[in-house]
This record gives sequence, C-alpha cells and structure tokens, in this order.
Amino acid sequence: MGGHEPAFEVHSGEIVETTTLDAHGYDENDRSICEGQNPLTGPFFINEAKPGDCIGVRIIDLSPNRSSCWTRRLLAPHLLTPELLSRFPELLIGIPGEGKHVDWAIAPDGRTVRVVEEPYRESVPSIDLAPMLGCIGVAPPEGQAIVTTTAGAHGGNMDYVGIAPGSTLYFPVFVPGAHLYLGDGHATQGHGEIGGTGTEVSMDVRFEVRLLKGHRIGWPRGENPTHFFTIGNARPLENALQHATSEMFAWLVDDYRLGIVDASLLMAQSVEYEVGNVFDPAYTMVCKIPRRHLPDHPLPREV
Amino acid sequence: MGGHEPAFEVHSGEIVETTTLDAHGYDENDRSICEGQNPLTGPFFINEAKPGDCIGVRIIDLSPNRSSCWTRRLLAPHLLTPELLSRFPELLIGIPGEGKHVDWAIAPDGRTVRVVEEPYRESVPSIDLAPMLGCIGVAPPEGQAIVTTTAGAHGGNMDYVGIAPGSTLYFPVFVPGAHLYLGDGHATQGHGEIGGTGTEVSMDVRFEVRLLKGHRIGWPRGENPTHFFTIGNARPLENALQHATSEMFAWLVDDYRLGIVDASLLMAQSVEYEVGNVFDPAYTMVCKIPRRHLPDHPLPREV
Amino acid sequence: MGGHEPAFEVHSGEIVETTTLDAHGYDENDRSICEGQNPLTGPFFINEAKPGDCIGVRIIDLSPNRSSCWTRRLLAPHLLTPELLSRFPELLIGIPGEGKHVDWAIAPDGRTVRVVEEPYRESVPSIDLAPMLGCIGVAPPEGQAIVTTTAGAHGGNMDYVGIAPGSTLYFPVFVPGAHLYLGDGHATQGHGEIGGTGTEVSMDVRFEVRLLKGHRIGWPRGENPTHFFTIGNARPLENALQHATSEMFAWLVDDYRLGIVDASLLMAQSVEYEVGNVFDPAYTMVCKIPRRHLPDHPLPREV
Amino acid sequence: MGGHEPAFEVHSGEIVETTTLDAHGYDENDRSICEGQNPLTGPFFINEAKPGDCIGVRIIDLSPNRSSCWTRRLLAPHLLTPELLSRFPELLIGIPGEGKHVDWAIAPDGRTVRVVEEPYRESVPSIDLAPMLGCIGVAPPEGQAIVTTTAGAHGGNMDYVGIAPGSTLYFPVFVPGAHLYLGDGHATQGHGEIGGTGTEVSMDVRFEVRLLKGHRIGWPRGENPTHFFTIGNARPLENALQHATSEMFAWLVDDYRLGIVDASLLMAQSVEYEVGNVFDPAYTMVCKIPRRHLPDHPLPREV
Repeated sequence: MGGHEPAFEVHSGEIVETTTLDAHGYDENDRSICEGQNPLTGPFFINEAKPGDCIGVRIIDLSPNRSSCWTRRLLAPHLLTPELLSRFPELLIGIPGEGKHVDWAIAPDGRTVRVVEEPYRESVPSIDLAPMLGCIGVAPPEGQAIVTTTAGAHGGNMDYVGIAPGSTLYFPVFVPGAHLYLGDGHATQGHGEIGGTGTEVSMDVRFEVRLLKGHRIGWPRGENPTHFFTIGNARPLENALQHATSEMFAWLVDDYRLGIVDASLLMAQSVEYEVGNVFDPAYTMVCKIPRRHLPDHPLPREV
Repeated sequence: MGGHEPAFEVHSGEIVETTTLDAHGYDENDRSICEGQNPLTGPFFINEAKPGDCIGVRIIDLSPNRSSCWTRRLLAPHLLTPELLSRFPELLIGIPGEGKHVDWAIAPDGRTVRVVEEPYRESVPSIDLAPMLGCIGVAPPEGQAIVTTTAGAHGGNMDYVGIAPGSTLYFPVFVPGAHLYLGDGHATQGHGEIGGTGTEVSMDVRFEVRLLKGHRIGWPRGENPTHFFTIGNARPLENALQHATSEMFAWLVDDYRLGIVDASLLMAQSVEYEVGNVFDPAYTMVCKIPRRHLPDHPLPREV
Repeated sequence: MGGHEPAFEVHSGEIVETTTLDAHGYDENDRSICEGQNPLTGPFFINEAKPGDCIGVRIIDLSPNRSSCWTRRLLAPHLLTPELLSRFPELLIGIPGEGKHVDWAIAPDGRTVRVVEEPYRESVPSIDLAPMLGCIGVAPPEGQAIVTTTAGAHGGNMDYVGIAPGSTLYFPVFVPGAHLYLGDGHATQGHGEIGGTGTEVSMDVRFEVRLLKGHRIGWPRGENPTHFFTIGNARPLENALQHATSEMFAWLVDDYRLGIVDASLLMAQSVEYEVGNVFDPAYTMVCKIPRRHLPDHPLPREV
Repeated sequence: MGGHEPAFEVHSGEIVETTTLDAHGYDENDRSICEGQNPLTGPFFINEAKPGDCIGVRIIDLSPNRSSCWTRRLLAPHLLTPELLSRFPELLIGIPGEGKHVDWAIAPDGRTVRVVEEPYRESVPSIDLAPMLGCIGVAPPEGQAIVTTTAGAHGGNMDYVGIAPGSTLYFPVFVPGAHLYLGDGHATQGHGEIGGTGTEVSMDVRFEVRLLKGHRIGWPRGENPTHFFTIGNARPLENALQHATSEMFAWLVDDYRLGIVDASLLMAQSVEYEVGNVFDPAYTMVCKIPRRHLPDHPLPREV
C-alpha cells in the first residue's frame, strides 16, 4: 500500500459500491485482470482527511460475485512442530504430481462452500459461508510503499475473519486523503489463515466511509454489534498482542475516560482475543471487549 | 505437579465431588488452609491408568462456594508496549498507598461479579459469572516435580476459560495412576489472564473420570457441546500455537482417519484459536474445530 | 530504501570515496544537511547489475570525519525484564530535566571515544574506537520503498558491528542497477545496539564494488579476514537466526559443494553467532564460520 | 536438577577433582554407567550455603578422559527456514539406513577432534579442541525437580561454550547446601548447539567452590580473564536476552554502584552477546562486558 495515485475520491458519509478481484487478480468472470499478489481496489482519496485524523469504514455488504473459489492445499509448515512435520513430511515438501490449488464451489443457495476436487469432495465437509476481506488499510507513513501481503499500523493483509459485514474498521490517516485500499476477499477462512489462503474469491462490496477529524488512533480499531476491538500487526505474535492490548487500553483511557485501574480491571476480566493471521510476514492479533461490559460512554466520533 | 503421594483413588467412570481452594489457599470460609501459589486438590490416583493411556475428565458442575473473590489490580506490563508503559508508568511501577488485591463480590443471584472497592465499584461494570478452573493436569514425565504456576504437555496452569462445566479434558498419562490435580478456580476471567488473575475464588466441583486404555495423545485435548479442541502450552506464543495445531492435525489424521490434504483443507477453513493465558511462564493456545464441520466419525474412545 | 532515482553510477571493480551523514543528517561540520532518520548516501547504480546477480561491497576505509558524536541516554526498555523496569522505572519513563542526547568526543589520537557530559565523563570509561556502518543495502524487491530504520533480505539498518573496514558484504540484486545505499556511521557500538544508537557520527568511507553476475543469494553474506558470515533480519530473534543459519547452510551446500551431513557436522561444531541489533523493527542475527574450519574451496565469485 | 540427596559435601575454598559421564551416561572406558539424558555428577552440598547466598565455581581444569566422541548427524530443523527444509527435506525427515550418531576422535596430540566415519572424515575439517561443560547448576527453587535437558535461573543445560577452564560461574542458592550438579562435557561445540550436541565425551574436571554469603543474584553470572558475563535461560530468545541484559544492569548498579545513566551508556557501547544454546527447551543468551571497559571497582565478593 502507498505509492499509487488516488483512483477515486470519496466524501465522508458517502457509500461506495465496488468490486474486488481475488488474491491472484481474477474477476467475477474468472478473467485475469491484474498480476501479482493481493491486487487491491483503490486507493480511495478520502476528502479532507489529514494526518492525525482517522477514518471509519463500515462494511455494509460483502458477497462473492462468482461461485468458484480456490485454496492452497496444505497447512503452512511453520505453524507445525518439527515432530509433526517429521511424521508427515509431505506437509513440508508438498505432494508431487498435483496442481497447486484446490478448487471449491459456493453452493447454489449461497450458504456453504465445498471442495470440488475428488476425492476431497467426499471427505471434507461443506463450510458455512462467512465472507470477509483479507486486506483493508490506508497508505503507510513516511512515504513508504509496502507490499499488500503484509500489515502494520496502516492495516493491510490482516486476514481477520471479523472484517465482515456489520463491522466498522477505523484506520489512522498518515497521508492527505488517507488512500484507502481493500480486497483479497475470502468466502470462508479459519482463524490464522493457517493454510495460507481463505477460499479466495472476487467480491461485490458496499461500504460507507466516515472521516473523524482530529481523532488520532495508533492502530486499527473496530466495532460490530457485539464487540469493540483493536488490531495489532507484528511479529512475533506477542508483539501483535501487545499492540492490540495497548491500543484497547488507550481507547478506554483516552476516549472512555476510564482510570488506569478501572481499565485494567475491566480488561483483565473481559477481553477476548482472536488470531487474525499467523501466515503473513506480520501476524495479526485482535483484542475485543463485549459491548455489554462497557460503560455507557460515547463512541469515538467526529470532532 | 508431581512429587506427591496419591491422596485419593478413583476408578474409570466414577464421579468425584470435591472442593478447591483459591489461588492463595483460602477455602469457602475464607480461611487460610495452605501456603503457596495455586495449591491444588489431589493428586487423584486413576486406577489402572498407565503411561501410554489417556484420561478424560468431564467437568459436570463447577461453582464458587463463597461470594468473595479477589484480583490483581493492574494489567501485566509485559503484555503492553513500551510506548504505552511510558505514558502510564503506574502500570509498571504500581500504585503507591494501595493494597495489592482488589476485592470483588458475587451478586446474590449468582449471575455476576462486581468490584467491592470504591471508587471502582461505580466505574467498573459487573461481569457475567463464568466459572472455570485455572489449573488441571497430571504428573509430568520423567519423575519431574513442576510448580503449579506453569503448564506443559501434562496440563497445569493453563488458565483457559474453556475449562468449564460442559467440557471434557483429555490428558496423556505419564506415571502409573496418572495423578490428576485440579484447582485455581476463577469466577470470571478475560482471555489471556492479562491481569495475572481471574476473580479468584474457592469452588465446589463435580467431575467424572474416564480411562482410555492405550489411547496415546501428545498434548491436552478436549471437547464441549460445540467444539473439539487441543491445547498447547509453551513460550513463545507461536510455539504454543504450533503444539495445539499439530495435536489437532494428529487427532484428525490418527483418530478420524482423514488424509493429510483433507485435514489441511478442513483445518485451514474452520479452526478457531483461543488464547488461554499469556501471563504464566508457559503461554496457552487452544485450537478448536466446530463439531458441525467434522465428519461423522467416532470420538477417541476407550479401547 | 527504494523509491529514489540513482544518484551515482559505479562499474564493477571501481573504488568509491564518499561521506555519510550521521543518523540525524548532520555532516562533518555538524551542519544539518538533511531531515529524517538515517539519511543515506546513494543510491549508487551498479552498472549491469540485474535481478539474480549479487554485488560485493568491500569496505576499505571507514573513519569519523568529525570528533563529536552523540548517543541516546538509556537502554531500550523492551530489552529489559518487567522486574528490572519496575526497580528502575526511569529506564522506561525517562529522566526529567535532561536533554535527549548525550555528547561524546573522539580523543585527539583517534583511538577512543568518551562521554563529554558531566558527571558521566568521570564515571563512564573511554570506549575503544571501532567504526562501523549501521545501514547498508540495496533497493528491496517488488518496487517497495522501505524506511531506513528497518532491515530485510535487502540489508538496511542492520547495526552489526562487523560492517567495518576489512569486511566485504554481499547483497542480492532485486532491481536493475541494484541501487546501493549506505550510512548511519557509528564510532563505537555494543552488540545489539541496545541503547538505540551507537556513538553516532558522520564518516569518510572508501569502498570497492564488485558485480557477481548470475550469483543468486537469499540474504546478505559477508567475509572478513577470519570468518565467513551470513545475516538474517527479522522478528522475532529466532527468525533472524533461522534466516542466517539457513543462508549459511545454502552457502556451504551450493557454493562449497558440501553434502547435507557434512554441512550439518561442520556448522554444528563451528558456527558462531553475533547479535546485530535487537533495537530496530527487524532484529539482526549473524551466523559465522571461521575460515580455518572451512575446506579449501573457492569463494563465491564472478561468473 | 533437584530431588536428589547430596552425594558429596564441599566447603568454601575447597578444590574438587571428579569426572563426568557423557550425555548418554558412558564413562572414560566407554562403559554405560547410567541411563537417561545428561546424567550429572553431584549433587555437591556446599557447606553453610543458604538461600540468598551465591556460590562461585571456578573451573580450573577440564579435559576429555577418552578419545572417542559422538555427535548427532543433522542440524535441528526448528533453526532452519521452511524454505530451506523444503529444499533439503532430509534435514527434517532424517537420512534412512544410517545409524543415529556420528563418531569423532580426538587427535593423539589432544588439539583437535575429527569425524571418524567415512566419507565425512575426508570432507569435514578437524575442529580445534575447546572443552566445555554443557550442564552446570544448582537445585531449583520451590522444591522442584527439573530435568537436566533444560535450564533456568538455577543454571542447567545451558550449553554455553564459555563454561570452560578459566571461567568462574556464580549461581544463586535456592536450597540449603545449594546442591551443585555438573556434567554433559563437550570436546567442541558451535554456538547454539544447533546440531543438538557438541562432540559428546566424558571428562576429568577440577573446580574450586567459593561461598559468597549474603550475595543475592538473580541469574547465573560469570567472569573469565577478558569479560564479565551474565546468563539468561528462557524462551523465546528475546526473553533469554532480557534476563541476561537485566542481570548485567543489576550487577553494574548494585555491585559496581554505577548510576542508571552510567550503566546504560556503558552497556550500550560495550556489551557483547553470545548465544549459548538454541536447541534445548530453554534457550541461553549471554551478555558480556570486556573487563577493560569496566571501572576499577571490586568484584562481587564474600561478605
């Protein structure tokens, strides 16, 4: 992300309808549109966004616009113990004579996705559809251009299952116009993206952008009907957890005006963590607090 | 765990009713019964359990047997970024003039727990009661005696919110009789035990033990009405995740007879992770698969 | 690194004499020439260098061109235990009423460097001068532009004390012309750069560039009169060690034609590790083998 | 370590001459004396040692007492990247049809050690003899019994090449009499013990024990003719580094009476790190300061 001229301009409050290509650049007709890993839609120039602001992106709708999906075939070896790899060396070396990708198909009722290839079609159960965006974020600070396979304080390839309809994501703004990017849709994905992909597919997406002037945040934040959450992207996984936990603490103290002890007591007894990805160069850890446990304070909002 | 003579003998299929002290050794009347950190109930000698078997412990009931609970006051600094600690140094240095523990009380209806101490009583919301055991496990291998503040393949201080009524935990047997220990009850706990404690309390507990002869597992496993799960205990957090992920893979391949590709495809699209603890010397990561996504194969069972 | 037009063109075998600014952009007269962190000299376009080649940079001379140096004042808190930080919270919070930097001066004989500021001048011993370059590397792959405060397979801010006169560094070429950058000179530095700086100073530098056509390497390599070495840059430190160790193994097998067992036996009994930095976003670990333990095979060389 | 009755009693200032078995329990005649991993000599009860004291162990002589040594055959896969393992899967799976160990022999002049097995005898160079003890330490705290394949604040299986003649190691005392253990001699070893063994051999050892009453230390410390050093044992490697770095800081401030800024400035410009092991359950990192850079203060000494 970063390093591209803005492709679209959006004003705060506007709703955008667009599409995303799959992680290899194929569109809704399974035509190759673009080379490279995780080609994204954007950048969207958010009118009047300045460094020090933050933007909110509410995902209204997200749905696959074709039925064919694909995945990698094997779990990532770095997530398995040497002992297990030694028992099942194919996990490391690969399986000879087989193509790289496994094809999956979304059922006609749009509720599940299933392997197409035999014999796995019979032995692997259908998985409930749960569309999400693997990549979303803004241009990074200091004029950098960073590949869309990794993530940072600017968002990026976070592969968090919670980036889904009903969620609003907040990103810090580092460059004028913020330069919002999104893509890398998955029809389903287990936590951690431990196989290296979700069921990769192109998407129709509808989202609303809001500009929160003068609201400075350190890392991506979000909310959905049940939780508030913060996202840390780093290696090792402890560092990702530190960033997410610290951003939640800052949220409670700075925006909810809780004291240090109050925020500690509340977080210690009520946070939940979700692993975003443990596959990409930066791992992603999400720190969540149930809305029902939060005092009735206003949300971070436009100044 | 390890290093004690068995205190009780249990046969497979028997149900045990007992109590646990809180993490500082106080009982249901708030009397100090025992010194040290995390004094446990047990060890229970499981009749006919031999190395190479595994035992299942089904938690039938678990409920606090007194209303007073306690917690530490502040989040653990190693889970926060240096930047945040630098903004809020009290998180590292502590808060002068205040006692160490914060008292909480379970509401008369037994559904929530709330801070007693002012002014936090007003500012920290009630938390829904969700009783769990912080410590459960068996004697470790090789004649070791290991403190009950850490965890390993033998279980131990895992501080996982899923060790709760309705769950069955499976442990490998390393010594004749297995030597089951349990304790360290929490009325509530956020994921990760990031404040260093749950709401610590003594408990009444009822559990059933089953012996699974000849069923060799590598790390603790479990099941509850919605999921199967495996538990890894190690540092760093990636290693804990590797152990849990590898044990789940072994479960699917060895017991469910899935192929390597099948197990990979299923896990990549359906695992969920939960952070047990990131406070203790060994961190705990749980790898879960929804029961609905598993093929209709038999559970690991008594041979 | 990356994202700049080439400033100079160099042919293989040419010797370059140039200067580097200090880490804050000050020159030999202590004048501010440039904003930002770690401004570098370059990029040098290496004639005929193509992706898949590697370049060698032999550091012939490197010496401070002014006597005044500066450092940060305190150790980096993320390298200390919470227990120690709790005893000495100033390490985290900082020391009020004092300026940020500590001034050091190189002795007139050019052999040591010493703190200028009282009372530290008396209590901190002189340190033997050992000039090195904190930053050296090439443009990264995939058109990225990456800040000069971090490091990767392209080199960068490695802060390794062995990047010094008498060493030759080898870098993979990712873009036509390689685009070599260098700077961030230190008159001295402890391993790890655990205070966040060496004794920062501007430098005169003389180096020779050689192009090794068709010689593909994965990570920076190097040699000096006593050792061959490889450099890994990543977080966590284990990952940096994995990259360095794996690159050394590949070197022995691919270039020295050792077998897998031979390379394993040799490395297991003779590698030495040096910590480059544990301060920057990517940590640096160096894997070395004494030249005397290596069979008498040719060095990687121009094809 | 821990869990054994004392085998010998030693008074402060006494010199002990003894032998150690190799890591599989074989003695100077290559006879199996003992089962298990890393059988140790001891425990030595240090007269009048009490918790809160520390003991110093000066290694006077250490030399192999037989010429035959053995090593494992391949590098440990967890120290290599998945990419490299995928190129050379034998590193993970092992090499079929070959025995587990590789035999080495010490040259008649006692100066080098060389592989015996063909064809490696020709292709792997002789390695200079550098005898060291892989294991040394005391009984751990809290009545624990901990296997001799791991390490902690009590020392243990640190596999640091600096535990060698000319070095003095200091250990905290956790139980009355300290209970000193030692063994696991290596004729040579690369840093990190990345193949899982040094050249394993039985040893003659002569050491002097000194009791330092009332001198409380947190982690093993040491000194040799050129350096003072501290040792951290933990996972991940960063945690080991934190413990070693923090213990050195405490040493400078508590014993050398340096101020916080002085200790920071000195350490930042002069520490050196050495990797002890990255093979065992706990990794070992050593933080060193050259004696020449230390102010002329007394060493920690008997009170």
